[in-house]
Amino acid sequence: MKTLAECATPALVLDRNKLQINAKRMLDQCHRRGTRLRPHMKTLKSIEAARYCIDPQHGGIAVSTLREAEYFAALGITDIQLAVCLPPDKLLRAVRVPSRKFSFFVDSIATARALAALAASDRHWNIWIEIDCGEHRTGVAPDDPLLLEIAHCLSSVRNLSIEGVATHAGQAYAVHEPAAHARIAEVERAALLEARQRLLRGGCDVRGASAGSTPTAAHGENFDGLSELRAGVYMVGDLFQAAIGTVPMADVALSVLATVISHNRRRNQIVIDAGGLALSKDRSTAELRDGDGGYGIVADIEGQLSFGRMSVRDVHQEHGEIRSATPLPFERLPVGSRVRIFPNHACMTAAMYDSYWVVAGGAGVVDRWSRVNGWSSPTVEQAMESA
Amino acid sequence: MKTLAECATPALVLDRNKLQINAKRMLDQCHRRGTRLRPHMKTLKSIEAARYCIDPQHGGIAVSTLREAEYFAALGITDIQLAVCLPPDKLLRAVRVPSRKFSFFVDSIATARALAALAASDRHWNIWIEIDCGEHRTGVAPDDPLLLEIAHCLSSVRNLSIEGVATHAGQAYAVHEPAAHARIAEVERAALLEARQRLLRGGCDVRGASAGSTPTAAHGENFDGLSELRAGVYMVGDLFQAAIGTVPMADVALSVLATVISHNRRRNQIVIDAGGLALSKDRSTAELRDGDGGYGIVADIEGQLSFGRMSVRDVHQEHGEIRSATPLPFERLPVGSRVRIFPNHACMTAAMYDSYWVVAGGAGVVDRWSRVNGWSSPTVEQAMESA
Repeated sequence: MKTLAECATPALVLDRNKLQINAKRMLDQCHRRGTRLRPHMKTLKSIEAARYCIDPQHGGIAVSTLREAEYFAALGITDIQLAVCLPPDKLLRAVRVPSRKFSFFVDSIATARALAALAASDRHWNIWIEIDCGEHRTGVAPDDPLLLEIAHCLSSVRNLSIEGVATHAGQAYAVHEPAAHARIAEVERAALLEARQRLLRGGCDVRGASAGSTPTAAHGENFDGLSELRAGVYMVGDLFQAAIGTVPMADVALSVLATVISHNRRRNQIVIDAGGLALSKDRSTAELRDGDGGYGIVADIEGQLSFGRMSVRDVHQEHGEIRSATPLPFERLPVGSRVRIFPNHACMTAAMYDSYWVVAGGAGVVDRWSRVNGWSSPTVEQAMESA
Repeated sequence: MKTLAECATPALVLDRNKLQINAKRMLDQCHRRGTRLRPHMKTLKSIEAARYCIDPQHGGIAVSTLREAEYFAALGITDIQLAVCLPPDKLLRAVRVPSRKFSFFVDSIATARALAALAASDRHWNIWIEIDCGEHRTGVAPDDPLLLEIAHCLSSVRNLSIEGVATHAGQAYAVHEPAAHARIAEVERAALLEARQRLLRGGCDVRGASAGSTPTAAHGENFDGLSELRAGVYMVGDLFQAAIGTVPMADVALSVLATVISHNRRRNQIVIDAGGLALSKDRSTAELRDGDGGYGIVADIEGQLSFGRMSVRDVHQEHGEIRSATPLPFERLPVGSRVRIFPNHACMTAAMYDSYWVVAGGAGVVDRWSRVNGWSSPTVEQAMESA
């Protein structure tokens, strides 16, 4: 069997056993609380990973780009929700996503009107009106008059169903305790119920209510009235998720395989071939009281934390510098040896790779999984080139 | 003619006119100071861009990964320097880089010995011994006994030429004025001359001396004794380079094309479809006294700074939030309209895209250029899969 010792570095490693544990934990939480899960594939962007995470009671997924939607649709996923607001000019590309049920978010009159103007297309549109429950990124506040304006505009469009209202409590990342996440989960739920109530009173019979973030989904206690929860990074976790208590450190499933390329004993420094590109420059753990993991925590090739909290302290484009207040294990980590780095933010780190080496607990490679990246569509781009 | 108004977003835009200006400025500087330029392609990773930057008096380029080396070699570049130390197990891949002259850095006995062990291969190795001139990333200090040890080990290898000594004064980024960069350029030069002198005295007749970073190359005043300078980000610049005075803001050639997807007038916020992935999470300008550009400065579709210093203040994976202390231009930027974002750090931002839309001063697309990313080699990976 091939092992991680033979893979070119840097490379992305996914532990399938841990993925399964994380997938089951979240599915159990959703079912126990009486709702269903729509796994968000923005972190892993992989059909093989999606198959481990899809809720058999639901069947759908969420994605973050049209490119992802095209990839998953081509591979047979029939219910795909693009959990982002589309501007009018992306509708022409959205028309062609080859999925039986493709939906996306709308929070503007501009896009609602563009949909009305496109009514002649054969596509049946499935729309979620995005609600802002306090993150203040996109979405309309539940009490904003714009909510009914958008709903009425959409209701006039032929071939269009308003699937429901959707929200994401990104503000959950500003607090770092399960009890606080549970409170924000309730804010998320309340915003959707209020918005749906207003729509009903305004004559729009809207059924769906889609909420979620990994912290609120993991720690919410009451999901009554929600038709689904969306979450993504829970599948693999990362140092930030571990620090805020949503995924145990022992279940963090994603790491970067790297090779030691240089020693500097004078400076007590070991340099690896994974730098700012391979690990990402995300420093989300810097703000955590006890959780600062630099640019990643160094594990051995088996994924064990046998070096304690040893971390990558600085990165350059293709270099990562491991330093420590205590003497580094130069003998255990000669030039050419392998390590695995648990990153701060899985979504950002994974984005630099086009596939996963899959392991099942150790350093033996059991599979290779695909991954889609970027935003361009080969088909659309070719069409545009020839236009 | 197609324009940026028709391109799917987010996308990467390269202004060819500005690239030419930047390329000429650096070439002129090198020739005026009596040395030659080896353009570093780690920022743009594009054959078309390389052709605009290669020094006719030199012919070679530098790269930062084996993947780049393979790409440029396959496209006909004959002198490629991988300006990173290779661990022993990458030599098997390096053997197959199809370039007439492929060289890389060595700073360890481990790799020197591995080269000796591989002497039976037909490959002629071209090696640069990496010197640490104060950045303390990789390389051996000029006065370190290891320098001669490595040189003697390499000298014993059949089919191997020590091209010279090489260094990179990354510490130049910690100071932000041309005079300071000029002083560090002198540190860079002195370290190489000292190392070469020690090698000569130790019986190793090493000729080459390769130095460089964009700040030291741009502002150095004396390059006597250097056989070449390496620099990369000067080709396009970015907010950080503009702030430290190496590339004028007017000549920053790289930007991210984005579309407005949401308005929030209550919060004075405009949201675009370029977030942490499309812009990168690099916050290098945060430390600059007057230069903090958030996650990027917003220009109009022509690339003009007609919104002043309006910037992206926060990013999520696929969302960028434009906010300002003064009222935002909602009327000029309706949902669906286009902007261009000048990023903090071109090398990190460009890495998320697989091609460039090329413009020549405005919003008209004049060409499309390729770009290579990541680390895996299709060939090598296939061979490993079947192994």
